[in-house]
Amino acid sequence: MTITVHHLNNSRSQRILWLLEELSVDYELVSYQRDPQTNLAPPELKQAHPLGKSPIIEDDGRSTSESGAIIEYLCARHGGNSWVPDSGSPEWIDHLEWMQFGESSFFIPVMMKLMAGRLGDAAAPIMPRIEEQLEAHVMFAEEAISEDLHFVGSDWTAADVMMSFPAEIAMMHGFSSRAPKLARFVAAIHDRPAWKRARERSGPYFMW
Amino acid sequence: MTITVHHLNNSRSQRILWLLEELSVDYELVSYQRDPQTNLAPPELKQAHPLGKSPIIEDDGRSTSESGAIIEYLCARHGGNSWVPDSGSPEWIDHLEWMQFGESSFFIPVMMKLMAGRLGDAAAPIMPRIEEQLEAHVMFAEEAISEDLHFVGSDWTAADVMMSFPAEIAMMHGFSSRAPKLARFVAAIHDRPAWKRARERSGPYFMW
Repeated sequence: MTITVHHLNNSRSQRILWLLEELSVDYELVSYQRDPQTNLAPPELKQAHPLGKSPIIEDDGRSTSESGAIIEYLCARHGGNSWVPDSGSPEWIDHLEWMQFGESSFFIPVMMKLMAGRLGDAAAPIMPRIEEQLEAHVMFAEEAISEDLHFVGSDWTAADVMMSFPAEIAMMHGFSSRAPKLARFVAAIHDRPAWKRARERSGPYFMW
Repeated sequence: MTITVHHLNNSRSQRILWLLEELSVDYELVSYQRDPQTNLAPPELKQAHPLGKSPIIEDDGRSTSESGAIIEYLCARHGGNSWVPDSGSPEWIDHLEWMQFGESSFFIPVMMKLMAGRLGDAAAPIMPRIEEQLEAHVMFAEEAISEDLHFVGSDWTAADVMMSFPAEIAMMHGFSSRAPKLARFVAAIHDRPAWKRARERSGPYFMW
């Protein structure tokens, strides 16, 4: 059965398409476009999920939301066992941490900066703290990624899929010279044939 | 070997103490107090984790951060198998979703409201959107929790541990009448002997 992916342009959903291509899983793409004025997801997404969030996948009669849950699910159910370390191994603990960090800790300062940006000068009292937190989170990931550009062990894992979006966000916030490993990580991902196939199907993705 | 928990007062770390008590695991508490002026974590926490975050646990020679990772780790390593559904079961997918939702999706509007609150009237242009998002996330959890007050299946699981903090936050934001199931969920948790033991060791916790 084909998986359906509810995909929002320029969003965290892009990495789900990349993973599906890596796993050679058939999928049908239902595309949504951000509102050009507000940059928010369109209301139609609420038909796929009450919170109007993307990504959502439908498989085997049920919908699943939350990037981390979707990535774990796809690896377990669709031939991605090698993308998740064995339960109980030291790498498995690293994997658990990055699967959470990539959506929880990291996105607090990113979303704060986005919202504060809408307030312009009015956000000045909180901006230094937001900038400091964003930098701290990017540099924490930069310190942690290995010289051979993986977050867990020495090969591609689900943690790298999860962290691809935070790393891309770091590049868009101008961290390429201060976070050179993350910059090379993003370049290595975008050079993968599976990523290119996903990009071809989904259309434009930020600056890439 | 005893587990060390780096615990910040009035924080998401409280649920880790609750879980440790439920699993009857020995732990040593290292307590940190928020700055009374800024409400931020004290700089000492950076000695436990580069980002100065809590909770952190130390076990078997390594530190682990991120609430979701710590909860999964404790269940797998310290006798909490019954707190996590079998891999591959439908409940397991629910579990994956709530383990992510409870720290990623839910906390964006919560943290936004906290930061915007510091700006006072200057935050007026973004406050309606933040309030609407907070309400949507609380009501999504209210709809999802079962009549017998569990997020996954019909008994206590790691998802309930994860969601305890978001449910408490919802109560503190005044949702008790609009989210009566979440209110009863919080009351049921606080009535558990294990939760009371954790509360006794940790000291005051918000209004409880």
